[in-house]
Amino acid sequence: MTELFEFGRRVLGEQPFSVLLGTELEVLEEGKAVLALAVREELKQQHGFVHGGVVSYLADNALTYAGGSVLGDSVTSEYKINYLRPAKGEKLVARASVLSSGKRQAVCQCQVVAIADGGERVVAVAQGTITKVE
Amino acid sequence: MTELFEFGRRVLGEQPFSVLLGTELEVLEEGKAVLALAVREELKQQHGFVHGGVVSYLADNALTYAGGSVLGDSVTSEYKINYLRPAKGEKLVARASVLSSGKRQAVCQCQVVAIADGGERVVAVAQGTITKVE
Amino acid sequence: MTELFEFGRRVLGEQPFSVLLGTELEVLEEGKAVLALAVREELKQQHGFVHGGVVSYLADNALTYAGGSVLGDSVTSEYKINYLRPAKGEKLVARASVLSSGKRQAVCQCQVVAIADGGERVVAVAQGTITKVE
Amino acid sequence: MTELFEFGRRVLGEQPFSVLLGTELEVLEEGKAVLALAVREELKQQHGFVHGGVVSYLADNALTYAGGSVLGDSVTSEYKINYLRPAKGEKLVARASVLSSGKRQAVCQCQVVAIADGGERVVAVAQGTITKVE
Repeated sequence: MTELFEFGRRVLGEQPFSVLLGTELEVLEEGKAVLALAVREELKQQHGFVHGGVVSYLADNALTYAGGSVLGDSVTSEYKINYLRPAKGEKLVARASVLSSGKRQAVCQCQVVAIADGGERVVAVAQGTITKVE
Repeated sequence: MTELFEFGRRVLGEQPFSVLLGTELEVLEEGKAVLALAVREELKQQHGFVHGGVVSYLADNALTYAGGSVLGDSVTSEYKINYLRPAKGEKLVARASVLSSGKRQAVCQCQVVAIADGGERVVAVAQGTITKVE
Repeated sequence: MTELFEFGRRVLGEQPFSVLLGTELEVLEEGKAVLALAVREELKQQHGFVHGGVVSYLADNALTYAGGSVLGDSVTSEYKINYLRPAKGEKLVARASVLSSGKRQAVCQCQVVAIADGGERVVAVAQGTITKVE
Repeated sequence: MTELFEFGRRVLGEQPFSVLLGTELEVLEEGKAVLALAVREELKQQHGFVHGGVVSYLADNALTYAGGSVLGDSVTSEYKINYLRPAKGEKLVARASVLSSGKRQAVCQCQVVAIADGGERVVAVAQGTITKVE
């Protein structure tokens, strides 16, 4: 495990909300981050799908991690998400990457997929700006 | 209490994720929704502020409620959020309203404010599209 | 006329694209900007409405002007727009205001209205981030 | 040339605004569209770069073309764009593709690149929703 990955995992453990949800860091390398979340009843909405807010949270956090991999300590300044289909399955995975970065900001994109029965489907796509904390 | 408000409150109680977070419906009337959330340790990130994912969740849900107040059973199709400042205080309140609506979709805006020491500050603004479930 | 307004008008005259389209600055004061554009055949799409790209241009430019009124020389870093209805009429007006600003960036919102027969209708809403040029 | 491409080119010729700007359709196939625009003085802003409104227009139009390739006659309902760097060069090219589509809507992404001295650089990325005209 790299130092960057170790650092990322420690930060995730210091986010009480990520601990509450059960998020795990799968990948963190320069320009790229993957976060995963096991689906459980508590994360759903009234129709039995994962709540959009959970999908958004995961996308937002993956965007921040991707941006942070090149900027250091960072926050999401803004993002936009399109939900493509209901999120159902055993696990959600958010894969984010950096499209462009400068000294203070990075623009990143993210896909969130739902894994069910061994297959995966894209459930949301997001795009946003990550800003270095100074 | 109106029938619409009662219905909205029941739906919120049927969203396990909203129950997990502790969200409350404060207002639901035609074209307008207000959701509130008491801030607690579990909802924070590593710097002690409310996690952006919580702010996003609240904005997303308020947008859906506002859109749903004119469309009936609805989901958020997409939205965009700008975080304006760190979210800290005792309570978050998301106020959403419908800007325009047709048979199938409504475009809504939302402000999320943080309440601290009796005052409030806008911490995020969001804009998105709500789609009727058919 | 204030110095700020004079400056804004001069900059608009230095944007060849704004001159090509015929954009006029109606208001520029701290935190607020209004741009207007007379509708003519050349600005339309195939269904006879003003092209979405024109509406976007006007919103984008109004956002930059609003942000620039508090930041100085600025560019739009990102924005999102929802088209609410077809843009038709004699004139488009984009009204933008600053929601929040720091040293380097401002978050702004904008409404674009179409004026027809003396009345006006909102045709688009936008939200974005303006960044100071350094 | 396919029928779809022929149709797309005819529609572009029926958009007075696209004719004013000089936009050309380079590719239109199921789920994919490429639009190009030669840079000229009239399309610039005050710093000598292509005006953001032109970049937005091209992204918006490419998104609509991509969505339209699977939906038929369509309009952009909403989109978000991040400008990554100043747009300069001889030509702008917007490449859009469909991420997901249903009967009435498609979610699409687009990259706008600037071509200069034979090389290209991404100057903007966009993501949005295209809706079938009914």
